Amino acid sequence: MFVKEGIIASPGIVIAKALVYEKVIVEVNKNKVENPDKEIEKFQNAIKKSHEQLETIRIQAISELGEEEGAIFEAHAMVLDDPEFVEGVEAEINDSHLSADNAVKIVTDRFYEIFDQMDDPYFSARAADIKDVGTRVLQNILGIVQADLSQLDEDVIIIADDLTPSDTAQMDKKRVKGFATNIGSRTSHTAIMARSLEIPAVLGLCDITETVKTGDLMVVDGLTGRVCVNPGNEELESYEKEKQKYLDYLKELEELKDLDAITLDGRKVELVGNIGEPNDAAGVLKNGGVGVGLYRTEFLYMNSDVMPGEEKQFAAYRSVLEAFPDGPVIIRTLDIGGDKKLPYLPMDDELNPFLGLRAIRLCFKEVGLFKIQLRAILRASVYGHAHIMFPMISSITEVRQAKAILQDCMKELDDEQIAYDKDVKVGVMIEIPSAAIAADIISKEVDFFSIGTNDLCQYTLAVDRMNQEVSYLYDPFNPAILRLIQLVTATSDKKDQFFTGMCGEMAGDPLAAILLLGLGLDEFSMSALSIPQIKKIIRSVRYEDAKAIATAALNMETGEEIMDFVQESMKKLNLYI
Amino acid sequence: MFVKEGIIASPGIVIAKALVYEKVIVEVNKNKVENPDKEIEKFQNAIKKSHEQLETIRIQAISELGEEEGAIFEAHAMVLDDPEFVEGVEAEINDSHLSADNAVKIVTDRFYEIFDQMDDPYFSARAADIKDVGTRVLQNILGIVQADLSQLDEDVIIIADDLTPSDTAQMDKKRVKGFATNIGSRTSHTAIMARSLEIPAVLGLCDITETVKTGDLMVVDGLTGRVCVNPGNEELESYEKEKQKYLDYLKELEELKDLDAITLDGRKVELVGNIGEPNDAAGVLKNGGVGVGLYRTEFLYMNSDVMPGEEKQFAAYRSVLEAFPDGPVIIRTLDIGGDKKLPYLPMDDELNPFLGLRAIRLCFKEVGLFKIQLRAILRASVYGHAHIMFPMISSITEVRQAKAILQDCMKELDDEQIAYDKDVKVGVMIEIPSAAIAADIISKEVDFFSIGTNDLCQYTLAVDRMNQEVSYLYDPFNPAILRLIQLVTATSDKKDQFFTGMCGEMAGDPLAAILLLGLGLDEFSMSALSIPQIKKIIRSVRYEDAKAIATAALNMETGEEIMDFVQESMKKLNLYI
Repeated sequence: MFVKEGIIASPGIVIAKALVYEKVIVEVNKNKVENPDKEIEKFQNAIKKSHEQLETIRIQAISELGEEEGAIFEAHAMVLDDPEFVEGVEAEINDSHLSADNAVKIVTDRFYEIFDQMDDPYFSARAADIKDVGTRVLQNILGIVQADLSQLDEDVIIIADDLTPSDTAQMDKKRVKGFATNIGSRTSHTAIMARSLEIPAVLGLCDITETVKTGDLMVVDGLTGRVCVNPGNEELESYEKEKQKYLDYLKELEELKDLDAITLDGRKVELVGNIGEPNDAAGVLKNGGVGVGLYRTEFLYMNSDVMPGEEKQFAAYRSVLEAFPDGPVIIRTLDIGGDKKLPYLPMDDELNPFLGLRAIRLCFKEVGLFKIQLRAILRASVYGHAHIMFPMISSITEVRQAKAILQDCMKELDDEQIAYDKDVKVGVMIEIPSAAIAADIISKEVDFFSIGTNDLCQYTLAVDRMNQEVSYLYDPFNPAILRLIQLVTATSDKKDQFFTGMCGEMAGDPLAAILLLGLGLDEFSMSALSIPQIKKIIRSVRYEDAKAIATAALNMETGEEIMDFVQESMKKLNLYI
Repeated sequence: MFVKEGIIASPGIVIAKALVYEKVIVEVNKNKVENPDKEIEKFQNAIKKSHEQLETIRIQAISELGEEEGAIFEAHAMVLDDPEFVEGVEAEINDSHLSADNAVKIVTDRFYEIFDQMDDPYFSARAADIKDVGTRVLQNILGIVQADLSQLDEDVIIIADDLTPSDTAQMDKKRVKGFATNIGSRTSHTAIMARSLEIPAVLGLCDITETVKTGDLMVVDGLTGRVCVNPGNEELESYEKEKQKYLDYLKELEELKDLDAITLDGRKVELVGNIGEPNDAAGVLKNGGVGVGLYRTEFLYMNSDVMPGEEKQFAAYRSVLEAFPDGPVIIRTLDIGGDKKLPYLPMDDELNPFLGLRAIRLCFKEVGLFKIQLRAILRASVYGHAHIMFPMISSITEVRQAKAILQDCMKELDDEQIAYDKDVKVGVMIEIPSAAIAADIISKEVDFFSIGTNDLCQYTLAVDRMNQEVSYLYDPFNPAILRLIQLVTATSDKKDQFFTGMCGEMAGDPLAAILLLGLGLDEFSMSALSIPQIKKIIRSVRYEDAKAIATAALNMETGEEIMDFVQESMKKLNLYI
């Protein structure tokens, strides 16, 4: 027996036999070729074959996993048709006399790196897609056939280096009960798929494919992040008990769906969802979210080759507003720049893009673009409870500037006799330290705040969390961050009808929930799947106790100390993290 | 008569005739050449001629302006011998068949851009040097002779696009009484030279070379940033009066040199200097600085092709400590990374270097390098009042980590029976927002703080001030910045024998002095030349009044409002900004 520790990617405990899924390692021919035309032909045949395979997988994915998963393979097929990809490969073959396989690998890697460097789950997913498609084309060029997970005889835990959408789409979902992989993170495809299949997963185990053999009995414990290979009877029994306890907990979560997020002593908060596209609204509703705390409108822009017009935007905003007739929908205005670019809006390279022309700063420069969005939101505002939120605000001056442009748009609509909600709520992201420190000043001009912890942490600690050399310093539990949050909520407390939400990852982190509640947060916005667990935590504590826990944390010296302390407090309440 | 407004670069008022200094515009031959050998020969002849010219200028500069100014032309001569420059040009000629002039221009521009992008006065100066040398070589290739400012018949104000070290070195200093240029900033060579010659300068006037003719009577008012061309009698009289008033003020400053920096009601603060090299100590002493508030040790590393060893560092630190037998010398440990690189320490490119592996973070990675510096400082500590200061601290954890390494070094010296000051003071830069917010926590581990406003502003406002698209947001007077400063000084106030200084540009800004005094700053560290004026301001106010001004400012909404308010307050006290 041995135990290894990795990254928790999907919760739960499973006990089953291991199936080591080894992929053929693809070696490309790096020699110059004499007949480029032949390589071009090989490449085109591989593209054709890949198209056929993807269509088969797509149909299977739709029937087994739903439309959304099927769409991944539509996106894959689009990569095959992308002129930048196809012409890129053909140029490498024709101009540099590379083999078809080498050219595909080089162009795929180039694309992959561009997307992988971006700090955004949307682009990380695109990077994974590109790699997946590239590998498919490569294998089709070289005639490699991958091992098949579509027909399994018994329940298994898949052990792999990493899993791609192609791997998981064709998987026999009835038989696959868990994942354990060498690499991966909480946001990698394997993790997302495990959570969507609701099976436990532990990733980042480094060499699990080397140390486990197919047929080994093993436990994947997605609650503690451990895997146990060939456990003894005693361990097996203990894991069975933990598993049952967790299943009971899940049943409880299920029953909470239509209940309020209210503490034992009656403090009610709002749990809402972060969405990127109108389709995501369904997941928020399904998980008991009462509204949208962050609608990331940039996806509307990024999924398009041209600037989306007012009508297209209006339709998208309206459909989300109509999905929540009773709840708020906070629409964040365009947050582009930094690591997110638009193909149709050229932007200069910057030495420090995170400290550069981003979000509202860019909208002030491109007022025309900004006004189209504001008009679309205003027009949609009559269909629900629209809230407009400006990102990257650093001072009250910028709020006034943004509101002046909004006023212009309102006047235009008035002149055109187009209806909009004249009391539309206006708020700002609190994600720049100066905005948190001057929250009392800024609050004079807005109706609500939403704290963006991801950026707030990066700026407050001067750390790019995507930079591996320093990401160890990125810590939302750092006392300075908690103090800033408190500054913001304290301002909000003093004002009637004003609320402070949070839409950074911290809002959906179970370990942070009691702290944030105790700091006085009014609204928690997170990915839909996190809502039930956060609701459970809030319904399990007294507000007075949460306040005491937060106050104690504010006096601690380090993030580590605070996390240990909260973990202890949660254990006492029998809560999972 | 007309008046134009520009950037104040050097104070004072001068009334004299304009001399428009027009430079020959150099056009390079962009065609491919047939005989590269001939171009190489042209290039080598131009290098030789440039060497001769530089030697003449160097001797003249030393005799007229001193050793330091002469050293600029030694540096220029070194560029001529720099293999990267010479081989770079020759490669362009040989490989791409460029003309000698085109090759020199391309390589010069390439070098210039690398240095110009760095946010550091040292490198900006180097960029200007490179441009200057490149232009010289270019002119020598093309046989262009520049206009001559070395023989002037009457007092003049030089009107130019911009001035280079070569222009200013040969200038007839007795006759040149002021500068007015199209481009430039407070840190450009023209500005630095004007301040060192103590003549008024207004820069950034856009098209002053087009609108003024040689012989026009004009006024350069370096107090308000205005130039007045062909003034009427009334204006002339008023300028004469302002000029006399300013001369009286300067005389007063002179008389302050050996007096304390003490307010009218007895609050004493410390005025100290920022230095980059041991030689800079003389300037601090000359201007009445009582010690060093920031010794930027990175120049020791950057001016060297190899890592400076313990002995070399020890000698440098010792010489500064000995220059200030009574005053503190705060030695900041290596602050490299971000935009500053070392030729002998390879560093990865980073997407956001300002949020990356910088300063103490790099020292934790390169502990060997860090320990050499700490040992050198410790060994020097017996020669004066050494203070060790760690840059880029974001949390108490890092302070403890740095101090543990310092303890290691102390133990090593103990074992080797080498003496050091066992009570050496240890402090940190407060330049990351989290450090300011958690100043009370961090203060438990240190003896002093020094607020680095340049970086603190950049992170707190999420603005790279070198990025022209967003630099308008960089504002040390933003209320959030003032509040952070107050958080830091409030912590310091509660502790015995603890002091809080400031070593960012704000500390030497006359407009900030009363605010900072009122916020409770104990020590102001600045470039030597700013010391007399800041002392004058401090000696002109009551601490109680400064506190009231600071309190009022903390309740204002914008940096602009605060600046206007302080300016009004200073006018009432008859103080110049």
